[in-house]
Amino acid sequence: MNNPTLKEIASQLGISITTVSKALKGYADVSPLTKKAVINLAKQLNYTPNSFAVNLRTKESKTIGLIIPTLVHDFFSIVIKGVLAEAEKRDYLVIILQSNEKLAFEKKQIELLLNKRVDGILMSLSNETDDFKHLNTIISHGTPLVLFDKIAKLVNCSKVSINDRKAAYDAVCYLINKGYKKIAHFRGSYTPQNSIDRFLGYKKALEDNNIQYDSSLVYLCDHNADFQDGYENAKKVIAEHPEIDAIFAITDLVAFGIIKYFNETGISIPNQIAVLGFSNWFMSSIVTPKLSTINQPGFEIGKQSAIILFDEIKLKRHNAPIVFKSIEIETHIIEREST
Amino acid sequence: MNNPTLKEIASQLGISITTVSKALKGYADVSPLTKKAVINLAKQLNYTPNSFAVNLRTKESKTIGLIIPTLVHDFFSIVIKGVLAEAEKRDYLVIILQSNEKLAFEKKQIELLLNKRVDGILMSLSNETDDFKHLNTIISHGTPLVLFDKIAKLVNCSKVSINDRKAAYDAVCYLINKGYKKIAHFRGSYTPQNSIDRFLGYKKALEDNNIQYDSSLVYLCDHNADFQDGYENAKKVIAEHPEIDAIFAITDLVAFGIIKYFNETGISIPNQIAVLGFSNWFMSSIVTPKLSTINQPGFEIGKQSAIILFDEIKLKRHNAPIVFKSIEIETHIIEREST
Repeated sequence: MNNPTLKEIASQLGISITTVSKALKGYADVSPLTKKAVINLAKQLNYTPNSFAVNLRTKESKTIGLIIPTLVHDFFSIVIKGVLAEAEKRDYLVIILQSNEKLAFEKKQIELLLNKRVDGILMSLSNETDDFKHLNTIISHGTPLVLFDKIAKLVNCSKVSINDRKAAYDAVCYLINKGYKKIAHFRGSYTPQNSIDRFLGYKKALEDNNIQYDSSLVYLCDHNADFQDGYENAKKVIAEHPEIDAIFAITDLVAFGIIKYFNETGISIPNQIAVLGFSNWFMSSIVTPKLSTINQPGFEIGKQSAIILFDEIKLKRHNAPIVFKSIEIETHIIEREST
Repeated sequence: MNNPTLKEIASQLGISITTVSKALKGYADVSPLTKKAVINLAKQLNYTPNSFAVNLRTKESKTIGLIIPTLVHDFFSIVIKGVLAEAEKRDYLVIILQSNEKLAFEKKQIELLLNKRVDGILMSLSNETDDFKHLNTIISHGTPLVLFDKIAKLVNCSKVSINDRKAAYDAVCYLINKGYKKIAHFRGSYTPQNSIDRFLGYKKALEDNNIQYDSSLVYLCDHNADFQDGYENAKKVIAEHPEIDAIFAITDLVAFGIIKYFNETGISIPNQIAVLGFSNWFMSSIVTPKLSTINQPGFEIGKQSAIILFDEIKLKRHNAPIVFKSIEIETHIIEREST
């Protein structure tokens, strides 16, 4: 008796399927008495309108896809919250997929979403993603696409991000102004735009302040910039460059690894070495010492990306022209105890 | 030119729609040459099989719904990872919704998922949920339902959880064995089963060890057991019961709030007061002092719930009888510095 069709309702009441359908849609040419009988029986039978059939007609699924690299990061949980807040307002459903930082997975997830006829896709790229054909498939398919956080500048669609280069530049200038001179950088891998931009911001800040850039002070976090990366690189930098007085880490998670190593080995933060993070994870105000960092407003990024996507879906529905937007969300430095 | 129909492909190639359809499905009675021509044109036109139409035929959407209370908690991010891992193996999509700890939202999310004809639903209940009619709607609709973590014992479906009462009992016995005698409990709100069970485990452990239960040592965390709850209740308990020597907190997040207040006011952990958490959040090994806690294996809970759900979907497809399972995932105490 699951999902009884209109036919079953019609047959039980001895009326036509058209009348049942009209009654459920509230058409005026069906008598109130019939309407009531149809609605009551539909309820009794747990009838739900077949939304897949509706989709065939309206060509909309009221569903969007959201592809994120991985859920381990606090940041993406907050982004999801921002996206869900906007989707809830519009009764849209959100299918969430992870690329697990793999290009191959990312391609597959896109295929699944397009097959599912989602009305639009929000995406933050995997660290591995270095070609963009699969993104162009979405675009040529006519499905609105908004990239956020880890974006590709060359892809022709709307984008929401922070100005990573400026944020990193400001962060390192802040360290220099506080008197730090020998600043190491624990960078992310070589592909993601935000990792490149944070590195370039670091380099430019040194140069603009007449501090010689030294490539041996840049350490690569090649395990997706995680806690272990911070811990291991902290060990390395102390062995190779005990003279450093500050570290600028690509994310708070890497910074937590540094703090753990320094706490274990009795290196005093910030007296011996200052540590500056990036993202302002919830936990950064709880670790000891409390981590200075740059806020990366995940909720706002998720929210703005979703708003743009829903606007584009609406414009597409009305065959109106879509002008792509590139939005930069403001960031600032949060000074705590570690610098 | 988006989503061209089979008709368009047929008309461009001058063959029948049936042949196009058969070619795309790889039927043997279509010549290899025709198949190749159809597949090439389909690719060229960015044709994707209409999965909504497929759904009308197979009556399956290859989609499941996952309703969680809120994404703020680390725990639910890890649960989602466990669910996605199993869904990915089966090419299933997962629609994720939050109840935001509200019963009204939970009802609405269920309605949306049933309208979308998901093949099954995974749910952890909101703190507010105290009647279960909406869950019975899912069951009478014939849609497999698995409850996890925050479950309702009375609902007739499969369940995956930990034994909260036993875990809390063991935790408090552990504190007593370490010599703590005046143990406060910061409990969760009065509705969720896990909050009730952890409280009952605490009470039983005291009684079994001949320690008088004192209701004034139980503090309610009524802001969804968050960081602020821990901080505020720590302040209160110190004012009202400075003689306590340990606190058992309902979650790590609450414990982090306690640690913050104690660190700020110079109360030494564990020398003056020990703190024991629950969940083993990633951050509990990073805070100072490192938090002793009970592991709550979120990935395993998500994974097992998904496996049971996919099994039930398969049984339903074959009209086979479904026997509901109640699985308890093992927990243990992780001893760190705070006890």
